[in-house]
Amino acid sequence: MNILLTNDDGIFAEGINVLYKALKRIASVDVVAPDTERSAVGHAITLSDPLRVRKVTRNGSFFGYATTGTPADCVKLAISAILKKKPDIVVSGINLGPNVGYSVLYSGTVSGASEGAIIGIPSFAISLATFEKPDYRFAAGFARRLVKQIMDNNTMPAGTLLNVNIPAIDSKRIKGVKIVKQTKTAIKERFDKREDPRKRTYYWLTGEVVESDGDNDADIEAIRKRYISITPIKCDMTDYGFMEELKKWSFE
Amino acid sequence: MNILLTNDDGIFAEGINVLYKALKRIASVDVVAPDTERSAVGHAITLSDPLRVRKVTRNGSFFGYATTGTPADCVKLAISAILKKKPDIVVSGINLGPNVGYSVLYSGTVSGASEGAIIGIPSFAISLATFEKPDYRFAAGFARRLVKQIMDNNTMPAGTLLNVNIPAIDSKRIKGVKIVKQTKTAIKERFDKREDPRKRTYYWLTGEVVESDGDNDADIEAIRKRYISITPIKCDMTDYGFMEELKKWSFE
Repeated sequence: MNILLTNDDGIFAEGINVLYKALKRIASVDVVAPDTERSAVGHAITLSDPLRVRKVTRNGSFFGYATTGTPADCVKLAISAILKKKPDIVVSGINLGPNVGYSVLYSGTVSGASEGAIIGIPSFAISLATFEKPDYRFAAGFARRLVKQIMDNNTMPAGTLLNVNIPAIDSKRIKGVKIVKQTKTAIKERFDKREDPRKRTYYWLTGEVVESDGDNDADIEAIRKRYISITPIKCDMTDYGFMEELKKWSFE
Repeated sequence: MNILLTNDDGIFAEGINVLYKALKRIASVDVVAPDTERSAVGHAITLSDPLRVRKVTRNGSFFGYATTGTPADCVKLAISAILKKKPDIVVSGINLGPNVGYSVLYSGTVSGASEGAIIGIPSFAISLATFEKPDYRFAAGFARRLVKQIMDNNTMPAGTLLNVNIPAIDSKRIKGVKIVKQTKTAIKERFDKREDPRKRTYYWLTGEVVESDGDNDADIEAIRKRYISITPIKCDMTDYGFMEELKKWSFE
């Protein structure tokens, strides 16, 4: 089995290192990841700049390919130009910080997996729901179990990926897995307005909070209640439910 | 009525100028757009850099606010920090080039509108399906009619935006409007591998083609058959159809 591994925290992040070691035990793993952090790049691709690729050593041996692109670029490049064989699975992570609710749309980690899903390769994104003192070991072990489930069940639809979030608590306290939807509460955020030394105004995006809507069937509440959340994410974003209503509108 | 107008081709693009003039006839229009082209930034947001805003003059008078951010940043900034009143509608465009199929996930133009939809404001993205000699006038007139339809019907669900593509042909030859889904064919692309003067390899993404799947109910085929395509796009990307199957998997 061949696994393509990417992330958006960059090839030198700890999350991808722990995940690499865990997956190496069951498969041949190719790493193609951004050379530095690319958080919140969303599903960006690089059109106006050339992409460069270099080999990276970690743990004293060849680890993978670092690129100057985004996670989506990495998956494209890996499959079109770097790897000799198409991977059986694309895995993106382990991200430092949760990817839940509408922030899925901004997530570089998720975009690495959706690039795989669009090409028709079973893919998942995995994130650890904390920003401090991360311990990636349990998440990496779970990723390995998920790879086996994906291969054994063999029912992942093309164009759909799995978005996995692991609660950042002692693994004994984790209650299990919940299959849940994206939380629909809007992200609460504000901008800090500041003045630079030349008296020019600038803004920092800050205070981003995605609040739980209290829905047990949604990702944020599931994690809060100590479950691993798995959300199947569709790259076909058509709102089929609204199409009939829209057909009644008059455009003459 | 207050309209917030953004785009991803930048505030000095012709598409946003023609659209501004058309919408001014029916509403108060605020422009907050990137200071330069931000194509294929997807739903990126700027976390690691401060954002700057400056006033821009076009056609001899105040036109709007240029920011150093992405289209999604522009909409966030406009609503949180620049505008005095929350807009009634967010419009993103007119983009030079189609936004169809899975490329919707990479589209800065669409991300401007989805930012509005997430906040709960009726929003649409509008694109002209050509890359050369664009004539935006018909598209701008259509955008004005669509604004009226959105306000009159008042049925747009929160979290859903409209993605509109206008065929780049003489308006008399346009057959009408089709409400269609996203085309599901993967984007065909390849990388040009080159060597720089110092003999280092680099790659250019090239040859991107989203081919029609021949489906009359999908965006690409509708445009090819000379219809205006309107696709309702849901920011809740949950694949509800796959959830039941996923619940059968074993994660122990």
